[in-house]
Parts: sequence; C-alpha cells; structure tokens
Amino acid sequence: MNNDTLKRLLRAVASGQTSVASAADSLQHVFVEDIEYAHVDHHRTLRKGFPEVIFGQGKTAEQIAGIMEKMNAQDDRVLVTRLSEQKAAHIQALFPQSVYHADARVLLLEKTPPPICGRGPVLVMSAGTSDIPVAKEASLTARAMGNEVETVYDVGVAGIHRLFSHKESIERASVLVVAAGMEGALPSVVAGLVNRPVIAVPTSVGYGTSLGGMTALFAMLNACSSNVAVVNIDNGFGAGYMAAMINRP
Amino acid sequence: MNNDTLKRLLRAVASGQTSVASAADSLQHVFVEDIEYAHVDHHRTLRKGFPEVIFGQGKTAEQIAGIMEKMNAQDDRVLVTRLSEQKAAHIQALFPQSVYHADARVLLLEKTPPPICGRGPVLVMSAGTSDIPVAKEASLTARAMGNEVETVYDVGVAGIHRLFSHKESIERASVLVVAAGMEGALPSVVAGLVNRPVIAVPTSVGYGTSLGGMTALFAMLNACSSNVAVVNIDNGFGAGYMAAMINRP
Amino acid sequence: MNNDTLKRLLRAVASGQTSVASAADSLQHVFVEDIEYAHVDHHRTLRKGFPEVIFGQGKTAEQIAGIMEKMNAQDDRVLVTRLSEQKAAHIQALFPQSVYHADARVLLLEKTPPPICGRGPVLVMSAGTSDIPVAKEASLTARAMGNEVETVYDVGVAGIHRLFSHKESIERASVLVVAAGMEGALPSVVAGLVNRPVIAVPTSVGYGTSLGGMTALFAMLNACSSNVAVVNIDNGFGAGYMAAMINRP
Amino acid sequence: MNNDTLKRLLRAVASGQTSVASAADSLQHVFVEDIEYAHVDHHRTLRKGFPEVIFGQGKTAEQIAGIMEKMNAQDDRVLVTRLSEQKAAHIQALFPQSVYHADARVLLLEKTPPPICGRGPVLVMSAGTSDIPVAKEASLTARAMGNEVETVYDVGVAGIHRLFSHKESIERASVLVVAAGMEGALPSVVAGLVNRPVIAVPTSVGYGTSLGGMTALFAMLNACSSNVAVVNIDNGFGAGYMAAMINRP
Amino acid sequence: MNNDTLKRLLRAVASGQTSVASAADSLQHVFVEDIEYAHVDHHRTLRKGFPEVIFGQGKTAEQIAGIMEKMNAQDDRVLVTRLSEQKAAHIQALFPQSVYHADARVLLLEKTPPPICGRGPVLVMSAGTSDIPVAKEASLTARAMGNEVETVYDVGVAGIHRLFSHKESIERASVLVVAAGMEGALPSVVAGLVNRPVIAVPTSVGYGTSLGGMTALFAMLNACSSNVAVVNIDNGFGAGYMAAMINRP
Amino acid sequence: MNNDTLKRLLRAVASGQTSVASAADSLQHVFVEDIEYAHVDHHRTLRKGFPEVIFGQGKTAEQIAGIMEKMNAQDDRVLVTRLSEQKAAHIQALFPQSVYHADARVLLLEKTPPPICGRGPVLVMSAGTSDIPVAKEASLTARAMGNEVETVYDVGVAGIHRLFSHKESIERASVLVVAAGMEGALPSVVAGLVNRPVIAVPTSVGYGTSLGGMTALFAMLNACSSNVAVVNIDNGFGAGYMAAMINRP
Amino acid sequence: MNNDTLKRLLRAVASGQTSVASAADSLQHVFVEDIEYAHVDHHRTLRKGFPEVIFGQGKTAEQIAGIMEKMNAQDDRVLVTRLSEQKAAHIQALFPQSVYHADARVLLLEKTPPPICGRGPVLVMSAGTSDIPVAKEASLTARAMGNEVETVYDVGVAGIHRLFSHKESIERASVLVVAAGMEGALPSVVAGLVNRPVIAVPTSVGYGTSLGGMTALFAMLNACSSNVAVVNIDNGFGAGYMAAMINRP
Amino acid sequence: MNNDTLKRLLRAVASGQTSVASAADSLQHVFVEDIEYAHVDHHRTLRKGFPEVIFGQGKTAEQIAGIMEKMNAQDDRVLVTRLSEQKAAHIQALFPQSVYHADARVLLLEKTPPPICGRGPVLVMSAGTSDIPVAKEASLTARAMGNEVETVYDVGVAGIHRLFSHKESIERASVLVVAAGMEGALPSVVAGLVNRPVIAVPTSVGYGTSLGGMTALFAMLNACSSNVAVVNIDNGFGAGYMAAMINRP
Repeated sequence: MNNDTLKRLLRAVASGQTSVASAADSLQHVFVEDIEYAHVDHHRTLRKGFPEVIFGQGKTAEQIAGIMEKMNAQDDRVLVTRLSEQKAAHIQALFPQSVYHADARVLLLEKTPPPICGRGPVLVMSAGTSDIPVAKEASLTARAMGNEVETVYDVGVAGIHRLFSHKESIERASVLVVAAGMEGALPSVVAGLVNRPVIAVPTSVGYGTSLGGMTALFAMLNACSSNVAVVNIDNGFGAGYMAAMINRP
Repeated sequence: MNNDTLKRLLRAVASGQTSVASAADSLQHVFVEDIEYAHVDHHRTLRKGFPEVIFGQGKTAEQIAGIMEKMNAQDDRVLVTRLSEQKAAHIQALFPQSVYHADARVLLLEKTPPPICGRGPVLVMSAGTSDIPVAKEASLTARAMGNEVETVYDVGVAGIHRLFSHKESIERASVLVVAAGMEGALPSVVAGLVNRPVIAVPTSVGYGTSLGGMTALFAMLNACSSNVAVVNIDNGFGAGYMAAMINRP
Repeated sequence: MNNDTLKRLLRAVASGQTSVASAADSLQHVFVEDIEYAHVDHHRTLRKGFPEVIFGQGKTAEQIAGIMEKMNAQDDRVLVTRLSEQKAAHIQALFPQSVYHADARVLLLEKTPPPICGRGPVLVMSAGTSDIPVAKEASLTARAMGNEVETVYDVGVAGIHRLFSHKESIERASVLVVAAGMEGALPSVVAGLVNRPVIAVPTSVGYGTSLGGMTALFAMLNACSSNVAVVNIDNGFGAGYMAAMINRP
Repeated sequence: MNNDTLKRLLRAVASGQTSVASAADSLQHVFVEDIEYAHVDHHRTLRKGFPEVIFGQGKTAEQIAGIMEKMNAQDDRVLVTRLSEQKAAHIQALFPQSVYHADARVLLLEKTPPPICGRGPVLVMSAGTSDIPVAKEASLTARAMGNEVETVYDVGVAGIHRLFSHKESIERASVLVVAAGMEGALPSVVAGLVNRPVIAVPTSVGYGTSLGGMTALFAMLNACSSNVAVVNIDNGFGAGYMAAMINRP
Repeated sequence: MNNDTLKRLLRAVASGQTSVASAADSLQHVFVEDIEYAHVDHHRTLRKGFPEVIFGQGKTAEQIAGIMEKMNAQDDRVLVTRLSEQKAAHIQALFPQSVYHADARVLLLEKTPPPICGRGPVLVMSAGTSDIPVAKEASLTARAMGNEVETVYDVGVAGIHRLFSHKESIERASVLVVAAGMEGALPSVVAGLVNRPVIAVPTSVGYGTSLGGMTALFAMLNACSSNVAVVNIDNGFGAGYMAAMINRP
Repeated sequence: MNNDTLKRLLRAVASGQTSVASAADSLQHVFVEDIEYAHVDHHRTLRKGFPEVIFGQGKTAEQIAGIMEKMNAQDDRVLVTRLSEQKAAHIQALFPQSVYHADARVLLLEKTPPPICGRGPVLVMSAGTSDIPVAKEASLTARAMGNEVETVYDVGVAGIHRLFSHKESIERASVLVVAAGMEGALPSVVAGLVNRPVIAVPTSVGYGTSLGGMTALFAMLNACSSNVAVVNIDNGFGAGYMAAMINRP
Repeated sequence: MNNDTLKRLLRAVASGQTSVASAADSLQHVFVEDIEYAHVDHHRTLRKGFPEVIFGQGKTAEQIAGIMEKMNAQDDRVLVTRLSEQKAAHIQALFPQSVYHADARVLLLEKTPPPICGRGPVLVMSAGTSDIPVAKEASLTARAMGNEVETVYDVGVAGIHRLFSHKESIERASVLVVAAGMEGALPSVVAGLVNRPVIAVPTSVGYGTSLGGMTALFAMLNACSSNVAVVNIDNGFGAGYMAAMINRP
Repeated sequence: MNNDTLKRLLRAVASGQTSVASAADSLQHVFVEDIEYAHVDHHRTLRKGFPEVIFGQGKTAEQIAGIMEKMNAQDDRVLVTRLSEQKAAHIQALFPQSVYHADARVLLLEKTPPPICGRGPVLVMSAGTSDIPVAKEASLTARAMGNEVETVYDVGVAGIHRLFSHKESIERASVLVVAAGMEGALPSVVAGLVNRPVIAVPTSVGYGTSLGGMTALFAMLNACSSNVAVVNIDNGFGAGYMAAMINRP
C-alpha cells in the first residue's frame, strides 16, 4: 500500500462510501500483519517511503519466504540482505522472478525498476578489491530506492594518484558512500575533497589489528574531515539506505 | 576569501588587470598559510562552503589565537570547539566581540549571523539533561552554518510519552540530530518515526558499563532503523556540521 | 525427593520407626550423588523448589544421560539446556518420553506438566524474529516451573507502534522477560511502561559492533528505566528461571 | 500527584463538576512539566508507584534544585542519587529538611517515611568494607520505597564461615541484594543457599584486573546459580529499586 | 641425559679418561640439538629436573615426531600437550608404547612411571563437569613429574555443601590446583579454607560474558584470598607443572 | 590468638577447668568480631598461619584504625597495604610504634620481627627502577611472614648481561618473585634459568600499549617457561604472600 | 616497467622520436590499469623499486589471476601473499612457472632471481617452531627484493643459551626480523644485543591470553630496547618488506 | 666510555702496560654500575653507539639525578625523556648546562652537539598541531644522535593539498617519522609517496573512539603501504631512535 492507495481509502471514508469500522479493519490489516514469528510492517512504506527490508541472517528460509509473501502482496519491491547462497536457492525456487547477487548476498524481488528521483548521483567507492561486496550491497540498495549510482573500486590511500584520477566523479556526486577495511583512511581523504556528505562504511577486510573492522570503524569516527558519518561494520545496506534518504529531492 | 572574492580576482587576471604571477602569489598566500605550528587552510572555505573550524583541545591559547587572527582576516566567522573556560578567557581578551558558550565549550567569532539557507529545520534532541552540552554544540554549529535549528531536550525512551508530545517537531524536521548517552536508544526510536536522515551522537554520559560512551555508540551503530548514521562520542560539532551538509539546498 | 518425601522420612525418625543412622545414610545418598564426573545435587530440589538443570554444552551425551538417569529416579522433571541436535538424538533414544525443542536447544523430560502456581502471567517478548530461540528457552523454562506464559515476538523499537498494539498483555504481566540483540533497546522502553520487574536478556543477534551480544548487554545494564535487571547473553534459561523465582506466590 | 488525587479528579469529571477541557489542562500540567532543561515526569508516580528519581551526576546543582522544586510540589518524597558533597551543600541550603548520606552520595527529601509494605525483608549484603557505600545506596532506596531492610557487611567468600554465621537472615529474606567488587563471587554463593531472587551489584572496588568493576560484573553474569540477575556497576540505586519492585505485595 | 650421566662424564674428564675436546663435543650435542625447525633442549633436564615438554598445537605431526625421537634417545619420558586426535594417531603409529588421553589431549611416552617424590599429595579440583579435561591435563602432568595426585570434580560454589564434603582431601593436600570456568569463584573459596598454595586455572567453559575464560581469569587474579596464583586459560599443563615445582621435597 | 593459645584453651576445656559454654563464648569472640563495617577474622591466624591483612584502599582511616585495634589485641603483627600517605599519618598518630614505607605504601605494626623459618631465601627482582615500589611491597610481606629476602633491582631484559651478573642469587633462591612492567618479559627469562617456582607480578609501569599493566600480565601468563604463576597487576603483597606460602618448611 | 624502460621512452620524447601525446597515452596505460575490480598500479615499481604485491586473502582466484596477468606483462616478479592452497592450485594451473610455499602461503612468479643488493645480511629469527611460517613469509619477501637472508628458528627466551649460540649471526646482520608469539619477548632481548634496527613481528601463536597475537604485539611495542619497530600480527610480508627498505644500499 | 677509550685500554693490556686484573676491574666498573635503585649500563654506549637514555616517568627526581651523575662522568650526552616540568626544575638546578624542552618533556645534557653523520635527512612530520610535542621528542632524539632533521607540521589527510606542497622534503628524506593521532591515516598516505622506510608514531590526540591513541596505532599497523613500521603511542623518542638506527651510514 502506498500513499495513493491510502488517500483513496480515506476519501471513500470522507464521502461515506466506506464505513469507518470497515476502513479501520482494512487499515489495521494493511498496516501490521502478525504472522507468529514476525510483525510485517506495511505501515513503513507510508512512513518511510520504502518497504521494510528483510535482514536474512538468523532467519530460516521458511521465515523469509513467509515474510516476502506478505510484502509482495502489497509492495512494489522486496529487498533481502545478508542472504546465504543456500537460503537464496530455496527462495528463488518460490519467487523465480527474484534476482540474487551472490557477492553482495542481496536478493531483489522487483516488479519494475524504480524511476531515478534523487537530487544527483550517489557515488559508491571502495578502498580495495576485497571491499567490493560491501560496496555492492550499498549500490544495489541505493539503486533500488530510485538513485543513479556510480562506482569506483580499489582506490586506497596507499596509491593516492589512483584516487585523483576519479576526481570528476567525486565532485559530481550528490552523496558519497566510501567502504574501506584495514586502516579505514579513505573516507577522511575523500571527504576532504568535497563539500557533500560522506557515509563511511567500515569493512571487516584485514587481519590482526584490523580487529574484524573495528579499527576501520574507529578511524572513520575520528576522521579529521567533518562531513563524515558512519554506519556499522560491513553494513553496505545501511550506507546505501542512508545515502538515498539524504538524496531525496 | 569566499567564492565572490575569488571570481573577482580571476576576472582581473582574465582581463589582464592582474598578472598571472601576482595572482598566483596572492592566491598561494590566500589558500594555505604556514604559521610554524599550523597550516591555516583558507582554501577550505571555497572547497567546503564553511571555514576550517579550530579544534581547541590540545592546542595552547596562543596557538588558537594565532590561527584565529589569520582566519579572521579572511573569513566571515570562526568557530572554536572544545575550548576550556581558561583558554576562552585568554582569547576573549584578544577578540572581545567573540561569544563563548561555556556549557558547550564553543566560542564563536562572527561578524554577522549567516542567513538561513537550509532545506528545512534541523531538529536537535537530547535523551537526558546531562546530554544538553553536546546537543548545544551541535545546534550552535548548525546555526552558524546557516540553518534554522529547533531543540527538544530530556525525552529519553524510559518515558516514551514525553517523546510523542513532540511528534510535530519531529515530523517537520528536514534532518535530525539525536544525542544520547547510557543505552543510546533514542536515535533508533526517533528514526523509526520519520523518513528523514538522523545523525546520532553518542555522549559519554553514564557510568560503569556505559564505558565512556562506547555502549551508546555501539548501540547506535546497531540501530534497527536504517536511516541512522553516527559520529564520534560527544562530537556535537560533527553532528551539527554533517546535518548542515545534508541540509544544503 | 521433594519436601513431602523428606518430611515423611523425618517423621519416621521422630517416631523411632527409622533409626538415625539409616536415615542419614539414605539422606546422604539422596542429597548428593557422586558419579565420577559429576556431583548430582538432589538437595537442590529442597533448597530451590526446582531440580538442578543440566547445562548440556561441554558435556558428552554419555555424561548427560548418566546425570539424567540419577535425577529421573528422584525428580518430577529434568530440563537440559544448550543441547545440540546430535546429542539430543542420542538422549531421546534412551529417554523416548522426552521432548526436544530444536530451535531453543532445550530437552524436557517430564512425567506430568506442573500446575500453574505463579502470582500472574509471565510475558516473554522478543525484539526480532532472530531472537525467538532465546525467548523460547525462557518461556519453556518458566512454564516448566509452573507459570502461565504469554509470548509476543518481533516488536523492536524501530516500529514502536507494533509494541503498543500489545499494551494489554504488557500491563497484565506479573513479570516480564525481554530478549533483544543489536542495540538492545526494547527492555528500556518496555520497563518504562510498567511497574513490574523486567528481566532483560541480551542476545547475540547482530553483526559488527553488536560484538556478539555485548552491546545489547551493556545497553540493557544502562537502561534508563530502573526496574530492569539483566542476565548473561543468550541466557534464556536464566531469564525464565529468575522470572519464575520472582513470580512465586 | 498519586492515584487518589487522580481518581478524585476523574470522578469530578464524571459527575460534571469539572469540565473535560479544564481536567485535561490540569492533567497535562500534572503529568509532564517541561522546564527547558528537563521534562519532569509526574506521570511516573502513577505508572510506577514511585516518583522519578533524580540522577545527580552530570546535572548542575541549579538544574537539580529546579527539578526538585517541581517534584516536591506533587510527590511525597524525592530521591537524588550520585550527588557530590558540593552540590548537596547547595541543595540542602534550599531544602533544609532534606537528609544527605555522604558515603552513599544519596539525598532524600521526605515528608513522612513510607509505611512498610513489602512481602518480606530485603537483605542487602556486601562482600567487603569498601563495598558498603554501594550497599547503602541500595538499602536507602529500598527503604524509601516501603521495604523493611536488613544489612550484613564484609562477608566475602575468602572467609566463608563469616557468611554462614548469617544464615538465618539469609533464609528469612524475601529478596536479596548482594554487592561485591574484585572477583564478584559472593552472589553466586549466596544464591546457591536460597530459593529467592538475588539482585547482584558489581562494585568498582579493586585494582588491576578488576577493571573498574567489569570483572565482578562478568563473573556475576556467569554465576552458576540461576536465581541471579545483575545491574550496572556501582548501581546500588537500581538494585534497591528492582528489589522493591520484586517485593511488591 | 640426567645429572648422573653428566657427573660420570665430568669425572672421566677429571681423571683424564676423556679429553676435554671430546667431552665438549658430546656435551654440545647432548645439550641442544638443532634440527632445522627446532632446538631440542636436553639441557633442560639438568636445569629443570624435567625434560622439555612438546606443545603440540601449531606443529605438524612430523615435527612433533622428529622432536620426540631426539628426546626419547636421552630422556625417561616425553610429554606432548594440546595434541589433536589426528596427530596423536600419526604419532602412536611411530611410538606404539605411548599413551594418549583424548579428553586431556595429552600423549605420554614413558619407559617407567616416576617414583612419588613430592612433599605431599597434590589435589586437583574442578568446578564443573566441563572443566574436567583441563583438570586432567594438570593431574597427568603432576603425576608424570613424580607426585601423588588426588582429584575432586564438579564442586562449584553454587552448591557449596558439595565442596565441604571433601574437606578432608582439601586439608591433606600439600598444593592445590583448582580449575574453573564461568565466574571462576572456586579458587577463592578453596584458598580461604587452607594455608597451602593454590594454583588457579581458568577454563574457557561458559558462553557470553565468560569471554572464553577471560572472566574466570580476571576473577581469579582478584581472589580475595592471597594464597592464589594463576596460570593461562585452559593451561592445565602449566598448573600441574607449577604444582610439581612447588611440591619438590 | 595463635595455635598455642588455642590449644591451652582447649586443654582447659578437656580438663574441666573451663566450661564448654564459656570457652565457646570466648572462642566466638576470638574468631570473628563484627564491628559494623567489618568482620575481623581472627580465625585466619589459625587457618592460615598469618593474620588477616588490611587492604587500605577504599577504607577510611577510621575504619582501618578500628580494625587494627581489634587485631592488635590478639595478633603479633598487623600489615596494612595500599595505604596513602595521608591515611598513614592519621594511623601513625594512633599507633606510634608502627612503621610506614611510603614508596611501597605499606604500614607494619609489629611487636617483634618474626624468626626466619622458610626453606630458603626468597629472591625479589624488579625489571626497572620504576617497578621497585611493587617489589618492595612483596619483600616486606615475605619478610613479615618469616622469610629471608634478597633483592635485585633494575635488571630488565634489554641489557641481559646485567641479569647474568646476579646468577648466583638466582640459583640460590628457594622461590623467586619477579616484578616487571612494560613488556613483562623478565619472569620468562628468569624462570628459564632455574628449577624453582617463580611468582610473576605485572606492574602498571609504562604508557600507551602497556595498558596499565595488562600487557605485562598477559605476557607473563604466556611465559614460555612453565614454572611461572601470576598475581594481579601491582599486587606485590600477593606475590610476597604466595612466595611465603610456598616456602613454608 | 622499470626505470630504464621509462628513461628510454622519455629520451625518445626529448629527441622527438615519440610525440608527447602518444607517450602520455602509453604512460597512462603503463601506470594504472583499471580492470573493473582493481586498479593495477604499475607506477609503484617506479615509485617504490618493487612492484605492487597481491594480498590474496579476500580476493577470488579469478581476480588474483587477472591482476597477475597485467603485472606479469610489465614486471620481473609478482608476489602473492596469504594465498590458500586451493587458490594456489588454480593459479599454478595458469602460471606453471610460479612457485608456491604452502607453509608461508606465498606464491612467487619470478623470471630470474634478483641480484643481491642490500647493505648486509638480513637475519630472520623465530621464537618457536610454530612461528616459522610467518618467519618464512618474511625471508621469502626479503630475498625476492634482493637481499641475502639468514634464518635462525626456535630460540625463545625460556632457554636463552639457545639464543646466545647464534650470537655471530646476530652481530653480522644489517637488519633483523624477529617473529614471536605468546609473550613476544624475543625482539626485546635480541635488540638489546645489537645496534641495528630490529623489525618485530608478533604472531598469533598461543592460546588464552595470547589474544590471537595482541599480547605479543603490545609487548613488542613496549620493548625496553629502543631499536625496535613493529608490524601487524602475522605480517611476515610487511616485516620482510620493511627490512629490505631499510637495507637498501 | 666510547670505543676509542676501550681500545686504548685493551692495547695497554696487550702491551703489558696494564695488568689483566686491573683492566678487568676498571672495565667491570665502567660497564655496569649498580647504584641500589639502578644498574647504569655504560656498556650500552659500546654496544649501541648511544648511551642509555633515562625514562623519566616513574622515577623520582633524586633517582634521575643520581643516574645522570654516573652517566655524565663517562658519556658525551645524556637524554632524559618524559620528564615533568617539576622534576626538570630540580635537575636543572643540579646540571645548569642542561636544556629542557617543556613541550616535548625532554631534557638534554650535552657537552658538544654531535656531528651530522646519517645517510641523509630525517624528516619528521605531524598530522596536526596537537601532535607537535611527540614529533618534537622524535626530532630532538634524532638530532642528538647525529642526524640532520627536517620538520613539517599540521599536514593531516583532510586537506591533502597541504601535504603535497611539501613533496620535495618528502622525497629528499632518507628516513621519515610520521606522528598522527585521531584516525592515524597520514603514515599510510606518506609511505605511498616514497620508497624509504617510514616510522609511524601514533599519538594520544583525540577523544572518544580515538581510545587514547589505540585507534591511530591499529590503523598504522594496518597501513596499506608496506614500508611502515610502528612504535608505541606517544613514543616520539623511540621513533627518533629507530630512525637514527636506520640512517646510520
């Protein structure tokens, strides 16, 4: 249910075509469906402009499919993140039109791709090759929420001339998402080059004192550039979502 | 130096009024001044739309005053953060027109207040009374960067009806800054109510397992709402800066 | 052996029907049985009102079965927690009347279900779908100890209206158990709505800075509501046990 | 305002003596007063049976006094915790009838002591002499909430016969609060002796690997007795509050 | 080579039967053999009274066998710790007279059992059933170094009467080794009962805030009894070795 | 009260000179005195062979003096550790015969020095000059418990020839206490030279990654020599006590 | 491309044989090749004197092979580190002349071995047998960069005479690399013996409080010898690279 | 005593001018002087080419002066680090020719400045103004050990053009020392520009998640450039010493 459907219903109530009781019932049903193991929150589409996203980790394939079925009945697209290949296989058997991106562990069930509506391009960058899966989760999310997305990969600070060769894309971007593991320095450098908001995503790439991404996270929170805010380790989805939220027209 | 001054200079070069060599000299000087203990980066005003901010902690009052002098010569306003009362007294003696906010530890030297130019109001909230200094640092920063700022204090999640009585302000805001210590739950709840970006600021308020703000930080990074990004502990300045960046028209 | 059996024995001693020596022998045996790798503590049923529970993790299936045999001879019910499916299969072959709950990893060997005896209903809530196994361990434990248990799942703080739709259950409860991972904010919000004790259970659900449940744990220990106490990460059993202890008539 | 006052008002509304509008106004005022730096939550007395407690740390003496004034107008008692001697002096000058307990850093402003109404005595124990301030904060809180409180101090596990000499008090208690620093072992031992709920309070007493109370906290969360739940480090107030909540008749 | 062999050789040098050069050669060889991946330190038997022990973890089966071959040629017994079942199978094929204790992951190659020579019995205790493997590593080590060893298992502090039923063994012991996971409280209680040295061994038994044994370790280092010293987590071998060292006549 | 006094009393009971009731009374009094803020444990002298030691930190000067008074009435010596200079001044005014060692923060109240009774000399070593206070706390304790003590200071591993020049003392020692901060390597090296037990004491000397002594602690727990056990950071008292316990004849 | 090739090209430009535009094109191509998932940085050979090394972990075998193909076309040797056996098999099928060192997880593709050009021998030491793989990664790297490398393994500080028997090698070395796990004490001792730079490599060898190498790392950063600098845990490659950099003539 | 003095003495022994016994005596004295609280290691000048440096923290002013007196008798210069202003005043009264650098907390007692003898200039950089004290400790040390030192301050990565304006100094340097706090990214960027060894010094500048320098430390250990090695937090002395060691001709 989107805003249009809602308004139609309310106008019917206003005009007396639909009784209050029946409208309430149908809205109640429409908003939150309680299916034993989950409260599917259709209200979110109204409140947020994008349906609830299913966090695949820690849910069984059966639970995910059950939630998808309810959402699919009312929403234009369903996004499942952190979905293992094994569960994806189970789900694609039930929803053959869904597309699974194995490296980003994202599944997208989409009737039609959304029109581009952001204020400008979202640029998604990764410091290394190993950070690409996280960057991809971000770009798939931002694209699914109606944004033009550009990507630049493997431009870590140890060879800073590689970064500068993409200056044009950097300056054109409306919002930037920068994924980096190890010392997590890239967002600080990039943010120093632009006057746009930068969403930094620490990744768990590295070993030893990278501490599973904690070092990159802490480094990013200490970025000497001030136009940086940070999301959880490996949370490409959150970065893409936040970028889309900022980029709303 | 702002964009207008720069363009005037460049037009003079274009028209032959000013030689390239002399323009380069004056620009070089204008951009980065090296004063032994600091590189004052005037270029930032052009690049970022806001002059470099002086981080007061760890600098001597003399160093801060030295940098302010250089900036004051070229910029409309100078913001000094994390400035102790003792250093502030030293500086206010030199810059009598500056205003010091003791609770937020912020000093502002401003010729004229900037016109409001953001896309909508920035709402700054605090979970408790003790989080107000951090919230204030955020609101002073956002205001100094040309934003209309609203504030709501002491609306923590333990008495959630207090929060709901401010629903109107929450829904009107273009960007939200939410400061909270202890369990850091407020940003998650607030973000669940809106479809706008929320900048979460963990504060060091609490004791024991609040771990100096780390618990609030980690909780915010795990917010189940996706429209949340986080800045460093007690970094009210960064939150206000990021909000202003997002709120640019 | 329960209080009745004990009193019968003591009356026999008092009346001279049983000699002190023989009573001591039988009590000694009854209280603590030393079976090489374990001291089975039958005394606990007298002392605590509920037999010792077997913590399955780190014990071999043979050791667990050996302890169950001793307990089964004297107690009305035996609860085994943290029992892997593999060990459960081994044990169910020996105790076919036992019931295994795979998601909660709990095995219950029970002659008759205990009568309801608590002061009121125990409400067990989970913030997300992935927290259900921990919540279930709590509800199975509380039920096995003679309590009426209600459950409400997937009502995290990001969509707080989902929580409010269960206000009635919340207000009716005598004790509440609230399981949450990630930012662990739910207990704080729930505790703010009631004047009953809330037992918070952090779960290891999440990734990155959820730190395997440490973030939820620390957040709960910092709950701004004061009617909250906390148990170990993923310790559904402990939460259910503590709730039952509080709920004694 | 307590339940009686509320009911009187509502009856007046029911009988037409008071108009709905005027009742709403007065209730609105009664429930939450917004005094710039704080939302004083009178509603809590109704919701929780005990007025909001003022957490003194991080608030100025002026802010605390301001909140006290509002609460004092409507509540029977006001409790301020974590109050430094310096702020206490400021406040006692304004509220001469208030009593300050310097070791527990608690100030109590109380018209009449509350009648005893708990189900049985609350026993507050400390492992060492240095843990007494935290234990005292717990016992003052529980007493202020209408409970009979017994105390036993300095009975750490290294001389376990000291503990056993208090077995009678231990067995008589309805709820137990056990404060311990260093290795935090006392709650586990005490809980093993009773079938009543034990609230464990880790204290920051110790040095080196006591890690400011984290070791005691973690040890308590790992107590092998199951009738234990834990509150934050040095949170004597929370322990006393939770004990009172559990002990309600 | 033991002290006797050494003395014989030196007497031969003294009497002129053996030349200095040839003695030096043979001693050089005897003391440290360099076999590419290891310096086998025969000198240790002289220096320490017990041959070097092979730490199996992180070495290949081939490397372990190579070192054993060198040691076996000169020493009465070889102890291999932290040896996986798979590597043990490989080694037992080469040294069929060796004995492998799978639960303690210890392999012992021993020509004759050493005579008992300690000052009194070493008592090895475990708090739970799951701590037995670590306790066993300690008792095997102490026995192999010539000590009488007694064991008492599963006497954790939650049921303290189980502990007291072994008071006789506790008081008879010359040195005590106490293994415990979770809250690690047992060493503190036991040490309070005796005036003998207690070696505490934290184990990694537990979950959540047991932090893989760190909580037990820190608790033990904070034991309020002073006759306690601690070894590394799960280091049963070290505890047994240290106990033997203390127990030397 | 020591063993002799106790036996005299018991013989009087046996011979009928003293009634059981009066003996019990006097023993009860003798064993544990409850003085509001402390249970003075005279029983410990019997149980441990050394009276309870007063841990000065966290107790007021008044509390310490109160406990000393009780102990002084029955014991030959009283040791107070972690005593600040300020509190020491207060106490020395009341007990003028007491001796305060400011660097080790130890106060000793001793009628006569105890005779030497250990199995051999205890050697106390420090890695650096800054570790001397901790080493001194250890040597004062061991001496007060009847041991001959030798000391060697400032022999850290960076100039290992300094260590070897004390080889004779090292080899003569019956037990060794080794205090070290920073990288904490000295115990490992020293233990490799002897076949005697080594008690390692990490100190908080260092900065940055010395983490207040945690690094030295962890390094010592990982000592590749097996004849090492460890006490808490800066716990010179515990090391000296443990050494004395091991060195009993 | 190396310096010679570059100079030839530039001379061709200088002499007019090659146009500026065509040279720029070919240089552009030569410097950084963008192959979707990676920016291959040929420029590094010029800038650093050694081609970019491929960090194998987190890249697919296909990605590694793709980067190798590009590098192989221009560089004399390609080094791949942290390469699993499985990926190595895939790569060796494509580059049959490459050599894979399974224990060090290093693959080397080298047309001709580089001539020795360092200032003196690089000595690589390991404290234990289990540290050899890391030491080997260091020595393979240093050798591939044109250095004479000596190795000494298993000379930990617990048997310090083993170390001294290699004094000659130690004193001859121009730079030293010292790998150690557990307590990480070896670099401190070795650095105390020489006046050459020592690169310390902590390894993850150990268990319990070795904390996956963090303890060794922190100990090394606290080395009381000042001629020590440290690289990441298990970073044998970095140590060898840094040693080569220092050893340049 | 330096190498020349030593050789003169040895030649006198060789020629019979000095007896072996008397030479040994004088050497023994010369090498290590034991002054109760310290072993002054004169041998180090021979072994290391630079006298032992006095770490001022944790030593009393009297102890420092005592050690200086011994060193001053034999060495050309004495360096004291981490010396508080208060202790410095005490020492300068005794050694009026010494120079104290208050910001770097370094005192230098030097007869004549050492001649420049390194392979090239050492470049010391700082990321911010607040990092200057640490950078200064490094440059004073390197200069005192005979190196030409250049400094560049306040060139953090957020304004990367400031860094590039010093490219010439960067490329000329033989060794680089880079001090940075907060996110610690500067060494990685600088190391990417040169093929010289970079010594990275994390500083404790920052707040919140800078964790007292741990974040910068971990980031530097994860530098994606390989020509970086790291010293302890705020260890400017160690960085300067290591740079001098590397720069030896």
